[in-house]
This record gives sequence, structure tokens and C-alpha cells, in this order.
Amino acid sequence: MEAPAPDHLLKLGTGFWASKVLLSAVEFELFTVLAEGPQTLAAISSRLGLHPRAARDFLDALVALNCLERNDGHYANTPSTELFLDKNKSTYIGGLLEMANARLYGFWGNLTTALRTGEPQSEASRGGEDPFKVLYSDPDRLRNFLRAMTGISRGANMAIARQFPWNDYKTVVDVGTAQGDLVVHVALANPDLQGTGFDLPPVGPVFEEYVTANGLAGRVRFNPGSFFDDPIPKGDVVMMGHILHDWDLETKNMLIRKAYDAIPAGGALLVYESIIDDDRSQNAFGLLMSLNMLIETPGGFDYTGADCIGWMKEAGFRDARVEHLVGPESMVIGFK
Amino acid sequence: MEAPAPDHLLKLGTGFWASKVLLSAVEFELFTVLAEGPQTLAAISSRLGLHPRAARDFLDALVALNCLERNDGHYANTPSTELFLDKNKSTYIGGLLEMANARLYGFWGNLTTALRTGEPQSEASRGGEDPFKVLYSDPDRLRNFLRAMTGISRGANMAIARQFPWNDYKTVVDVGTAQGDLVVHVALANPDLQGTGFDLPPVGPVFEEYVTANGLAGRVRFNPGSFFDDPIPKGDVVMMGHILHDWDLETKNMLIRKAYDAIPAGGALLVYESIIDDDRSQNAFGLLMSLNMLIETPGGFDYTGADCIGWMKEAGFRDARVEHLVGPESMVIGFK
Repeated sequence: MEAPAPDHLLKLGTGFWASKVLLSAVEFELFTVLAEGPQTLAAISSRLGLHPRAARDFLDALVALNCLERNDGHYANTPSTELFLDKNKSTYIGGLLEMANARLYGFWGNLTTALRTGEPQSEASRGGEDPFKVLYSDPDRLRNFLRAMTGISRGANMAIARQFPWNDYKTVVDVGTAQGDLVVHVALANPDLQGTGFDLPPVGPVFEEYVTANGLAGRVRFNPGSFFDDPIPKGDVVMMGHILHDWDLETKNMLIRKAYDAIPAGGALLVYESIIDDDRSQNAFGLLMSLNMLIETPGGFDYTGADCIGWMKEAGFRDARVEHLVGPESMVIGFK
Repeated sequence: MEAPAPDHLLKLGTGFWASKVLLSAVEFELFTVLAEGPQTLAAISSRLGLHPRAARDFLDALVALNCLERNDGHYANTPSTELFLDKNKSTYIGGLLEMANARLYGFWGNLTTALRTGEPQSEASRGGEDPFKVLYSDPDRLRNFLRAMTGISRGANMAIARQFPWNDYKTVVDVGTAQGDLVVHVALANPDLQGTGFDLPPVGPVFEEYVTANGLAGRVRFNPGSFFDDPIPKGDVVMMGHILHDWDLETKNMLIRKAYDAIPAGGALLVYESIIDDDRSQNAFGLLMSLNMLIETPGGFDYTGADCIGWMKEAGFRDARVEHLVGPESMVIGFK
């Protein structure tokens, strides 16, 4: 066996350096600026207002982190930052990183307190208000959150559009649809499918705009409502992406029962997020996301595929299975 | 070419989650507790005061991050966390992580401001006081800092003890010696060498204790002084580990000239830290460390091997070369 070296621990422990560099670059809209074309250190510094002491290390650190390229003194986006971090492209996923920068980085500074108390460290900690109420009451913050959700979901959404046996079904309802990225990609890949996005009324305009931009205004519609107060709209397939982990066990079970009631015999419930592996030892991102729910929400937590299959069977589903999507994301499908 | 995927960007942008989990684990002294032997979730929760909502995700995240092992419901240190993060072992490197947790994580939250202003965001920003004066005025904070420096230096120190041609020299002076880990490892590997640690007077007791614990009290001694106000003590080899990057260019050049004056013809100056590659595109840690100097100090910055060789030649050294040590660390050796 190789002698243990401390490098792994030092790199992990100072990992917030690299993370914050990317988050600040998104805050400066650096990648959006560079989507106009490669630029020199001087031009970028002047455009973004970077101080001479800091600018070169900042940009070169982004080169070393594979977020920029540098050729002949000109900095340019990588293919990945060009596609995913230019605000002017529909493929922009920076919303999550904007939210991480503006909110989560600071909240996570209180992780030790959260671990001791079990209490959230977000806006929700101030008087224990429902964090979604806070979020939905401010249109700018809401739009930012909805874009963030698109950011974290895009890769999985495209995998679901490909992998799920859509030919067996005619209608699909996306619960907690946000911008509608999941139902949009499913509908784009399956021209015979009718889609519905279900979310709180303030989400409507953001959803409609996104659906129209994707040319699906006739086939994908918005159904306003609350999954607490209203039944889930009926459909052959009900989808919940990054919804269940926000809530405590009682609410999770309530939502699964409502989904069961919304689908016909032969229909399916598709739940997806960073499903933790059953041994709880491999999917670091899923486990960290669960701690993020601790930081963010009064009762939310992530869970394993076995956990979710158990809840589905309790609700009456005849069969259920887990299928990997991309990266840390998997879906659990329950068949009625 | 593979289509770009956003996973890399999302993982990097949320990298502070994993980082903060390790930092909080060090704060809880989890690895020191587990050095007593493997323990159950319940036992650890009770010992550390972890809330039931948070404890399991926290520990399992550490398993998935390769910082803990879990067998039959008992959590245990990995070989690496057992050796490097148990406070009761001399191999403890957690000082840096304690400092990162208590100070740097919060300061880095203001990275965007630092990039705009070029101003430090540490204690040094409050009235622009010398950060080292602040540090050295509080014995507890000083001891924590000195242990932190040992933590970040250990691997490189052992490589220097092996790699440098010590047989050619009789005396070595370590400038800014802190706990003395570098001169201790050099002396342990080279029984004929006489060592001197040079640092401010408050460092003396911490240094003497460390040298004595390593059985070198007769051969390695402390020389109190300031490299601003005093000459560097004379020796065949002068070493500066993680010193030059703390200071602006003028001070860097002054220190290299003082080292030149301290060594005889045929002697050598050994400078080491996270030397940036000459293309400034590979050593991400070195570039991030330079941004850490922006956050921490009024004028510090890291630099490439070519930069350092240039400064050495200006000071009169006849020859100089760069040699890689471990991970992001390299040494630059100047020959007089």
C-alpha cells in the first residue's frame, strides 16, 4: 500500500477556493463577456472592473481549473463554459451558481451550527418561515431560483427524455415544474406527447416564456396550483424532479400518494434527483445535497433508491426500479 | 469530441460543500475521537453533539469523500485521516484546516470585493494593519497558525530532506521557521547537519518544544530575529518555505538579497512553495494560493519558477533551477 499523503485532505479542505473563484467569475458575467470573443487581460480587466493586483491570477486560475483557455495572451471560454455559462444562451446553467454565490456559500459557513441544532441556516432560519414563501414573494429572486433549478437539472432532463419508455404514454405532468426544462425536453424528444407543468401561480409567466421560446406553446401548458392544497393534475406519467428532497418524510409520502391518485392503472410516477446509493457510501453529491437541504429547509433530506421504492410500494405502486441518469442523478420509476 | 456536459461546472461551483464538511469535521475533532477506535452513529452523535437530523448524512458524506470508512455500522478513520487529522499525533496537519475553517472560509466569501479593489479581506483589512502583527500578538492564534504552516508544508519538507544534495553542506538556516518542521526533517535525514531556525521571538517556545519532541535539541537551535530588521543568520544553505509569497515584489527582492549575503560562495538559497508553472496554466493550487495571498495580505502573491530565477540572478546568484517536490509544491535553488 502506498503511504498516506496529506494532499487529498489539503485539496479537499481548501476546495472552497476553486469553488469561489468560479462563483465570482459567474457573478462578474465573465463567460458571457467572453462569448463575444477572446480578449486580453487588459480588456477583460477594464470591462469587468478587475484590480491589476488580482486580475491575472484570477483569470489564470480559471485556465488551470479548465474554465478558460488562453492563447497568445487572449482568454477565451472553453467549449463547456461557452455553452453553459453564457447568459445569452438558452443552455445557460449559471442560475444555480449565482444562487450558490449569493446565498449558499454564506449559509454553509454555519454548517457546524446546523450539524449541532438540525436547524436551517438560510432565510428559513429567520423566524422559521417557509423558504419557498420567501422565494416566491420576490419576482427577481424567484426567476433566479427557477433558472438555478434548470441549471442543476438540464443533463438529467435530457437523459430522461431519451431513456424513459415514452412511447407507452400519451400525457405527462411535471410537478413543481419551475421553468419547465424537464417537460420541455421530454416534449421535444417525443412529438406525440402532451405535457403539463404544475407549479404555483407566480411561476406561470416564467414557464410560458420558456415553453414558447422552445416552440412548444401548443403542446405544453401550465396548470397553476399547489401540491399542498390541490390534487396533482391527471396524466399517464407524473414526474417530480428535485421536489421530494425539499420536504420531510410525512410530506414526501403525501406527495407520492397524490401522484398515485393522479395516474391511471398502467401509468407511472417518475421521481428523480441526486438519489443516494443504497449503501450511502458512493454518491457524495447526493449526500452533500442532503446536507444542503439541512442548510436550506426545515425538514428536507435526500434519500436512497431503496428508501423511495419503499415509499412507493406503501402508496400502492405494484413495482418500482431505480435507473441511473447522468453524474449523481438517478430516477426511480413506480408503476401503478 | 465529446459534447460538453455541465457536471464539471456544477461540481466545481458547489465544491465548497465538500470542503466545508471536512472543515467542520476537523472543528468537531471527529478524527481525533475516532483515533480511539471505530464507533457507531449513536456514539459519535452523543460524543460530538450532532443533531439526529444531520449526523448520518454528515458521516456518510465523509465516507463518500474518502475521509472515513464504515463497516458493520461502525465509522472509522481512513489510513490518511488517522495519520494526518488526529490531534494527538505529531503528524497532525489539521492546523491549516482549522485556520481555513475559522478564518479563510469567511474571508473568501468576499473574493469578489478583493478582485475589484485589490485589498485584503482578512484581519489586515481592518485599518490595514500588518496581518502578522495581529497574528503574533495572540499566543493561541499564533500556535494555531504555526501548526497550520506545518500542515501545509509536511509533504514538501520530507521531499526536501530527501532530494536536496545535503552532503555538500554543513549548516542550514530556515528563515521564517515557524514550528521548525522543515529544518527538523532535514536534520533528521542528515545526521551531520547543524540547523538553525530563524523567526520572531514569540515563535521560540513553540519551535523549541517541537525540536525537543523530535530529539534534536542539541543540533537544531532557535535564532530569534526579524528578517526586516536583522540580517539573516549565516549558513551554507538558507531555506525559505512559504515566505516569499506573503510579500510584495520589493520585499521579495530584499529577502533574496539578505539570503545572498548570509551564505558563502558555494552556498545555496532554497526557496519553496506552490511555485506556479511558467505557463501559468497548470498549477491551479499555486494560482489559488496567490489569490489567497490577495485575500490575506496587503501585497503578497505567488510566482513562477522563471520569476524566482530572475530575482535570484538579479541578486547575484550564478545559477538557479526549479525542482518539483510533491503535489503543487516545487523548490527553486539558487547557487552562489
